[in-house]
Formats: sequence, C-alpha cells, structure tokens
Amino acid sequence: MAGNSRQAGRSVTERALSVLTAFGPDADRLSLTEISHRAEIPLATAHRLVGELENWGALQRDSDGRYAIGLRLWELGLLAPVHTGLRGVAMPYMQQLHEQTGANVQLAVRDGLQAVYVEKLTGRRSTPIISRSGGRLPLHTTGVGKVLLAHASREEVQEYCAHHLSRHTPYTIVEPGRLVREIGGIQRRGFAWTTEEMTLGSCSVAVPVLSEGEVVAALGLVVDSARAEVGKLVRPLSRTAGSIGERLAETNRAKAGVE
Amino acid sequence: MAGNSRQAGRSVTERALSVLTAFGPDADRLSLTEISHRAEIPLATAHRLVGELENWGALQRDSDGRYAIGLRLWELGLLAPVHTGLRGVAMPYMQQLHEQTGANVQLAVRDGLQAVYVEKLTGRRSTPIISRSGGRLPLHTTGVGKVLLAHASREEVQEYCAHHLSRHTPYTIVEPGRLVREIGGIQRRGFAWTTEEMTLGSCSVAVPVLSEGEVVAALGLVVDSARAEVGKLVRPLSRTAGSIGERLAETNRAKAGVE
Repeated sequence: MAGNSRQAGRSVTERALSVLTAFGPDADRLSLTEISHRAEIPLATAHRLVGELENWGALQRDSDGRYAIGLRLWELGLLAPVHTGLRGVAMPYMQQLHEQTGANVQLAVRDGLQAVYVEKLTGRRSTPIISRSGGRLPLHTTGVGKVLLAHASREEVQEYCAHHLSRHTPYTIVEPGRLVREIGGIQRRGFAWTTEEMTLGSCSVAVPVLSEGEVVAALGLVVDSARAEVGKLVRPLSRTAGSIGERLAETNRAKAGVE
Repeated sequence: MAGNSRQAGRSVTERALSVLTAFGPDADRLSLTEISHRAEIPLATAHRLVGELENWGALQRDSDGRYAIGLRLWELGLLAPVHTGLRGVAMPYMQQLHEQTGANVQLAVRDGLQAVYVEKLTGRRSTPIISRSGGRLPLHTTGVGKVLLAHASREEVQEYCAHHLSRHTPYTIVEPGRLVREIGGIQRRGFAWTTEEMTLGSCSVAVPVLSEGEVVAALGLVVDSARAEVGKLVRPLSRTAGSIGERLAETNRAKAGVE
C-alpha cells in the first residue's frame, strides 16, 4: 500500500481508496460508522469522502442507509483486461463445456499466492460450489489452484508449501513434501485434480490455458464426488482449454496488428 | 459530477476519480499523456495520481507502458449489488434458457435513459451481438431497452421520446408517436420485440423481471432475423423471468430475516 508519494500520513487519494478497501466479500454493505472504523479514518472525513464517492457513482446508498459498491464502479471494473480479454474470449467455450458436461466450469488466474476466479458457470442441477467471480481461494485446495501453483516459479512453490498450507477439510494436503510431489505429477500429466480438499462432497479437475507458450489461466470442472469420473472429464476440458488458448493468441495477434 | 463538496476547483478525490473516468469502453488502455488530456489535469498531477492508483491496484501497467483498469478494481466492482444479487440469482436460469433456445440471453437494468447490460450469454453458434456486460445501449432500439422504457414513469417516457430517438439502422423507430404507441402495446402484452432496430440481421424479444411487484430488470433473447420465431421464444422467456423474480424475492426475504 505504501507508495513513493506517501509522505507524512496518508495522501487524500489513499484515504479515498481506503474507504473502498473497507468493502470486501464479507462486507459488501457497510454503514458510515463501519466504513470509518474499517478504513481507520475519522467519521467526519469518512462522511465527506463517502459523499464524493457516492456523487461519482463509486458507492450507492441502500434504502436502509448503508453503502454498497455503485453501478459506475462496477462498470469501470468490467473494463479490466481480465474481463474484456480473457473472460470475453473464454465464455462461449466455457458455455459449451458446461452444456456438454453438466459440471461447474471455472476459470481462474494466479495473483501472488491465491487463485482469483475470473468466471464460473453453474447450472441449476450442478453441485453447489463456493467460488464466485472476483473471489479468491488458496492454491493448494482446488484443481485450478494446483494447476496455477504447478506453473509458478520454483521459489514461489517453495514459499507456498512452507507457509501457506491451510487446512480446510480432513483431506486437504497440508504436508509440504506431499504437495511438492503432487505438483511434479501435475507438471508431467498436464492436469490436476482434488478430492474433497476444499469442500466435502466436491472434487475437481483442471488444466492450464496456454497462450503463446505461457500459462495465462487455469480451466477447471467441479463435480459431485459421488458421481465423479475424472478420467472422462480430462479430454473435453483439455480440448476446451486448447481452443481458448488459440483464440487468445489470435486476439493478441489481431490487436498487435491494429496498433 | 458537481457535488456539494465542490468548492474552488476540484477536490483531490475528484481529481483521482477523474483519472478513472478517463477510461471507457472505447478507451480501455491509455498512455499517461492520454490520461492527463482526457482527465483535464496537468501531466505531473496525472503522473502522481496514476502512481497512487497503480500501487493500490486500481490501475495496471501494460508491457508497452499503457495503463488499464487493474485486477483489484475489477474485484471490488464485482461486490456491487447488481452483480452479487441480481446477476448471481439470474445466471443459472439464464444458462438453462440459453441451452434450451440456443439464443443469446441478456439481462439489463435501466440507469436513467440507458439500458445497462448486467450479463449476456453467447454461444459459439449464436448470432453475434454488440452488447457486453457493463455496457450501455439506448432504450428504444433493443428488446430489453423497450421493456425497461415501458416501465419507466410517464415523464421519463415523454422526455425520452422527445429528445433521445437516435437512429441506428433504417428500421430504428425515430418517430415519437410511433414509439409511444408501441410502448402502450408492450405494457398490455407484457413483452417487447425489435426487428433490426439496433443491428441489421438481428431481432430480439424481451420481458420484464418482476420481484415483489416491481420491475427490477429486463430479460431478453437476441436471434438471427432470418431464423426468428418470436412467438415460440416468449413462453420460455416469460417462464425464466418468472423464476428469476421469485428467486430474487426469496433471497430478499431471507436477507431481511437475517438482519
């Protein structure tokens, strides 16, 4: 958070941003008092900044007086390359894969030591899943996470295995050596799977999305453990990831050509 | 844009926000010079503000030195009620409708005199469409737009018909009287359609999504004009909109119960 421009205390911009930082997956509607508390700014300052952010459309006020992220900030966020590029290209293919398999389809990228879910497609008959677009999950507990970890640098894998193996179910892998061996297997096989390592009753399988030789995302399927036939899912999953990767490369080449 | 807090010139928060406002659907990657120009702030100020916004994750820098909306702003935007509430509830139903009809499925809300697209589902075999989630289109040229306009206040309809009937194709309705009559028909029938009024080759049909007696969104299908059988699409569309509305009402009641 500390920038070069940080002198004595926080700049006004940083304070305004701290108001936005008060919001999170577990706190998407906040009162003015809660904002002031979470952003660590005085109530009067919070009041002024919230007013400016509301005027602009970054925040909106509920009928009960609480604030939430506004329509304009949502619109602006959707201009991010992860949405206009990756997600836009992948969606029709994810759609088709969902129709074909009936499974939950997920697309994720790595941000540091977490998997960020770019999109998920859930049917009304699919097994319930906890990921949501814009949400984050650990790397070692999910199929897409393991794929992304398997393509991180050796240093990042070591750092992750040494310090970040949180337990989520009795089946979560929390022994560094075991995870390192599994990552080796993922690198050789080209796909990852999990069995109830994040959520009891669910298992997942995932593959990397490669574009111009680089792993740019992971594509995964989540199904009910009882009905899981991981072997059958790998082939359609790999084919879809291949198509997405090719389409991304074409899009990039077209863009480079235009400029 | 002018808030009560606007005194002499713009506040620092407003300047920081003006940097973000420089970005738009037609300008999602900008150089520092372009940002300074579009935000109407000196280059040195732009440089400082962009640095702060980049540190926080609101902006990210490309390999070619241009800026785009960052991952963190994208994540934050997805906390907006329009995404977590409406879009989250509607998606599995939209999914099913897409599988059933093979048509493009769209969900939109009204913001002033424009339709804001909350989500669209496009198959690889569906007719290409120009709407995108987070994008805006006029109200009088699309199916979802006409439905939303038909449920606006009488004053808003009059204002819209008097001043906003832009032409997009030879078939766009630009005569106020004709649009007012059509809106009456939509109110009676409960659904709207368009025939090549926004894009040549495409037609659409749409219905309102009602939750607890209020029109909260419009749900539409876009198909190839040549293969259009609007009559057949109205029934599955209405049924889906009904399910979404009921589920939204249940969700709202559950939330009210929790608090």
